[in-house]
Amino acid sequence: MKDHPLVRRHTGGFRWEDVDVLAYKQEGAAPFKDVTRQVLFESAELPAQLRYFEVAAGGRTTLERHNHVHAVMVIRGKGRCLVGDRAYDIGERDLVSVPPMTWHQFHAAPDQPLGFLCLVAIDRDRPQLPSADEAQRLSAPLKP
Amino acid sequence: MKDHPLVRRHTGGFRWEDVDVLAYKQEGAAPFKDVTRQVLFESAELPAQLRYFEVAAGGRTTLERHNHVHAVMVIRGKGRCLVGDRAYDIGERDLVSVPPMTWHQFHAAPDQPLGFLCLVAIDRDRPQLPSADEAQRLSAPLKP
Repeated sequence: MKDHPLVRRHTGGFRWEDVDVLAYKQEGAAPFKDVTRQVLFESAELPAQLRYFEVAAGGRTTLERHNHVHAVMVIRGKGRCLVGDRAYDIGERDLVSVPPMTWHQFHAAPDQPLGFLCLVAIDRDRPQLPSADEAQRLSAPLKP
Repeated sequence: MKDHPLVRRHTGGFRWEDVDVLAYKQEGAAPFKDVTRQVLFESAELPAQLRYFEVAAGGRTTLERHNHVHAVMVIRGKGRCLVGDRAYDIGERDLVSVPPMTWHQFHAAPDQPLGFLCLVAIDRDRPQLPSADEAQRLSAPLKP
């Protein structure tokens, strides 16, 4: 909490003073489409991070699972998420909990972005990816 | 993350399914005015909690300090906060970091509430309160 000003303003459009807009993941490291990442809070004094992810209209995060949990609040737009074997329509201020080793993926609506806060522990394991066949099967609940 | 549904809807007015509206603190334990608390995420698998505090128009949190840090995002209304020896006007989506042992207090605007997310570690120390004289001196930057 020392490395940035005590108060950082929202400058409009879900961008903030002193917060960089980062790539979601390294391109090619995993399947995803049109996602950005901003780390809002991280500090040596905090055992967790708060990030803001934004999925552009029609985009999606990686389908993955891991031991660490996610605590998510949607703060922009609409979309759907897969958590385990169910898909859910989600919108502003809805809360999503992703338990350990649970397959999950976030899709923005076709016509609007999906922006969400995601709380994670600092210490966390690497995500596991499904095979292409497995991905097909796992993402079935997301099909309209 | 097991004790509540995986998706909890915002039901309007900054209230959520399966989230109780709690007293901010025990009445009389410390000075404050018109504040509610909702714990949005807490879990054995997460070393931190995400809470939503709402200060009604004209209300204020306790002026206090502690070793644990706060990571705050305003998500409703407007107000002012004291962090250390400065006061800041804050509004929707602004970010506030409260470093260790730094006096802080949140005031809602006279005519609208101030609602904010607050991320804290699970392991945290008890807040320290100023004496009445000290409070007077510390809160001077908040005076219009």
